[in-house]
Amino acid sequence: MPPPRTTERLAELAVLVGANLRRGQILSVAAELGHEPLVRAIAETAYRHGARFVEASYFDPWVKRARIEHAAGDTLDFVPSWYGERALARGEQRCASITLTGPAAPGLLDDLDPARAGRDLLPRVRENLRVINDRTVNWTIVPYPTPGWASLVHPQLPTDEALERLWEEVVHVCRLDEDDPVAAWKERFAATAAAAERLNERRFDAIHFEGPGTDLTVGLLPTSHWGNAGFTTVDGVPHLANVPSEEVFTSPDPTRTEGTVRSTKPLTFADGSVVRGLTVRFEGGRAVAIEADEGAVNLRTRTERDEGGARLGEVALVDREGRIGRLDTVFSETLLDENAASHIALGSAYEFAAGEEDRGRLNQSAIHIDFMIGGDEVDVDGITQTGERVPVLRGGAWQI
Amino acid sequence: MPPPRTTERLAELAVLVGANLRRGQILSVAAELGHEPLVRAIAETAYRHGARFVEASYFDPWVKRARIEHAAGDTLDFVPSWYGERALARGEQRCASITLTGPAAPGLLDDLDPARAGRDLLPRVRENLRVINDRTVNWTIVPYPTPGWASLVHPQLPTDEALERLWEEVVHVCRLDEDDPVAAWKERFAATAAAAERLNERRFDAIHFEGPGTDLTVGLLPTSHWGNAGFTTVDGVPHLANVPSEEVFTSPDPTRTEGTVRSTKPLTFADGSVVRGLTVRFEGGRAVAIEADEGAVNLRTRTERDEGGARLGEVALVDREGRIGRLDTVFSETLLDENAASHIALGSAYEFAAGEEDRGRLNQSAIHIDFMIGGDEVDVDGITQTGERVPVLRGGAWQI
Repeated sequence: MPPPRTTERLAELAVLVGANLRRGQILSVAAELGHEPLVRAIAETAYRHGARFVEASYFDPWVKRARIEHAAGDTLDFVPSWYGERALARGEQRCASITLTGPAAPGLLDDLDPARAGRDLLPRVRENLRVINDRTVNWTIVPYPTPGWASLVHPQLPTDEALERLWEEVVHVCRLDEDDPVAAWKERFAATAAAAERLNERRFDAIHFEGPGTDLTVGLLPTSHWGNAGFTTVDGVPHLANVPSEEVFTSPDPTRTEGTVRSTKPLTFADGSVVRGLTVRFEGGRAVAIEADEGAVNLRTRTERDEGGARLGEVALVDREGRIGRLDTVFSETLLDENAASHIALGSAYEFAAGEEDRGRLNQSAIHIDFMIGGDEVDVDGITQTGERVPVLRGGAWQI
Repeated sequence: MPPPRTTERLAELAVLVGANLRRGQILSVAAELGHEPLVRAIAETAYRHGARFVEASYFDPWVKRARIEHAAGDTLDFVPSWYGERALARGEQRCASITLTGPAAPGLLDDLDPARAGRDLLPRVRENLRVINDRTVNWTIVPYPTPGWASLVHPQLPTDEALERLWEEVVHVCRLDEDDPVAAWKERFAATAAAAERLNERRFDAIHFEGPGTDLTVGLLPTSHWGNAGFTTVDGVPHLANVPSEEVFTSPDPTRTEGTVRSTKPLTFADGSVVRGLTVRFEGGRAVAIEADEGAVNLRTRTERDEGGARLGEVALVDREGRIGRLDTVFSETLLDENAASHIALGSAYEFAAGEEDRGRLNQSAIHIDFMIGGDEVDVDGITQTGERVPVLRGGAWQI
C-alpha cells in the first residue's frame, strides 16, 4: 500500500537521522500491533548499521481494553515494577529508541468509562520522562500509517484510498518526497533553531496568545530556554526527537498561566479517545475549568491524576513554514497535529529547557498532554520584563 | 476459523486450570505475533478472574531473522540485561505465566546460516529456568493454531482446511471436546501421577530404551524423582506446566548416558528449523556424535553452546493412553510432539526432580531441547540397583 520502498526509506530516516543510531547500541522500538512492517524494516536497517540488539515491543490495545472493562478499579494505575526499571536501564546503558505512532484501532475504548480509561496511561511509563530529562537515550518518534488511522483521518474515503492518501501525506510531512530528505531536515532544523535563538535573545517574561476564544498568558521562568526537537544526548549524540517536527518550545513557569484558551484542533489520545472544541481556563497556573463540545472528561480525568496534571509543562510555537499546518488535515495524532500549530502541554516539563537554578520550579507530573492553540488567526506576542508587547507570530509568520 | 467459543474455552483452560491464576496476581503472557486472538481472550478471562495486571509480550520472528541475517556475529548471543531481570522479578513477585506455542512463520530462518541462528536462543532467556526451578511462578504452556503452523502440519490441505483440521486436533488433545475438560484433565493427571509413583517406588538405577536404531541406557541419580506436569509452587499453588501433557519425567545423571538413540519424530525448534532422522551417540553422558538425515547442524550448534548442552537434563515416559500419540500427527511443535512419545532432553535439568543431596550433580545449560525416542516399537526397561531388567513399557503400555 505505501509507495515502493517507502517503508524502508521511513525506517532509514528513523534509524539514521531521527534516532541517529550509533554502532554497538541497543535499539528499542516501541510499536503498536499493526506497525509490524515498519518495525521489521527498522530492525533490518539498524542491524545493517551495527546495532548490537533491536528490542521490538508491541503494545496490544485490545489487552488494554480488556483491563479497563474488567479489572478491579483500584488496580487500573498499577504498572509492574520492571516496566520502569527497563526504561531506566535503557538510559543507564545508553540505548537508542524509536517510538512509532499511528493508532491501529482508533476509538477502541470509546464505549468504556473514560474515568477508568484515564487511569491506565500505558504504554506510557513515568520513568521514560526521567530518561528524556537525563538525555541518556538518543530517541525519536515517527508516524506509521495504519488502515484504522487512515479511515479516522479520511472517513469519506474507502479504506484503501484513505490509506494511500495518508501515506502521501506522511511522505510529504516527513519530507521523503525530497530528493535529499536528510538535507531538507537539516535546513528546516536550522531555521527553527534560528527562531529559537531569536526568542532566547529576547528573554520574554511571558507569551501571550490572542484569537477566537483565546486570551492566554503563559509566564516563563527567568531561564526558560527555547529550542527545537534537535536534541543532543549527554554523550554528544545529536538526534531528532520527532520526525516530522516543526516546533520551537520551552518549559514555562507552572504558576503563571492566566486566562482562557480555545483549542484550534481536536485533541486525540493514543488510545483513540478524543476531545473536541476544548476550552481551558487557567488561574495562577492551574487549569481550573476544562470544558469541551465533546469528551472533556477524557482530558479532565487525566489532569486529575496528580498535582502537576493541571499545570503547564510546555509552550511551543509553530510557524507557517511547516508542512503539516499547510495540509489542513486533522491527523488525530499528537505527533503530527502538534506540529501543525502552536501548542501548550499539561503535565511534565522538559528539564533541559530551563537553567539549573530554575529546575526545581518546573512542573512535574506523570502526564504530558499537548493540545493545539495556534493558527493563522491566533496572534502570538512576547511580553518583556517591563510589560511591553512584542509581536512574535502574525498569521503564522515570524515577526522577530 | 476455530469452532465457536473455542478460543475462549482454550483461554479459560489456560488461565483457570493451566496457570491456575490467583486473584491479585500479575499474569505474563508470552506469545508470538499471530497469537493475538488467544492472548486477548486470556487477558479478558484473567481480568474477569481478578488479575492485577496482564502483561502481553509478542515475539516477532522477523526481527529475529533480521538479526541473524545482518548483525555482527559476536553479538548474536547478546541479550539486554532487563530481559533476565524481568524474568527474575516475575518470580520474586509470584506472578502467573502463560506461554503460547504454535509457530506463525515456520521455516522463516531456513535459508539462513544455522550456526548463526543457533546462537540466538530468544525468546528463551536463561533466567526463566531459574524461576522454574525456584517454583515461584505458576506457569503453563498451551498451543494456539496459526495458519502457518497448520500448513506445516497438513501440507496436503489448503490453508483454511489445514487450520480447521489442526483446530480439531488441538481441541481433542486439550480434551476440550469433553463435556467437562477440567474433570478429564484431573483424571488423566491422576493416572500419570500414579505411574510416576510406581516408578519412584522401584528406585531404578537406569532406564533402558531398545528399538529400531536405539539401544540407550540413561543412568538416574539416587534421588531422581518421577513426576508429571502437575506442579505446585513454593506457595502451594498447583498448576499444569503443559496443557496438554501426557508425560512422566525425571532429571537423570548427566554422566551416565550410554549408547545410541534414534529419534522417532522430527525435532522442530521454535524458530521453525527442523532435524529429521536424528541419531545421537552418547559416551559417559556426553552426546559425542549427532547425525541426521536433515538439519543435524541445527541441533549440533545449540548443544555446543555450553558444557551442559551435550548432556541430558530430562528423561520422560509417555504411555499410549495419551491422546497425541494416537493421532499419529507430527505437529512439528515440541509441546505436542514431546507428549506423543517417550523422550529425552539435552540441556538443563529440573532441580525439583531430584533430592537436595543430588542437586549439585544435575545438568546445567542455557538450552533444554526435547526429542522423541519412544513409541510402540520401543521397549522401555528399568534397570535395578542389582542390574536386573524390569519391563516398564511394552507397546506403549505400562508393565509396572
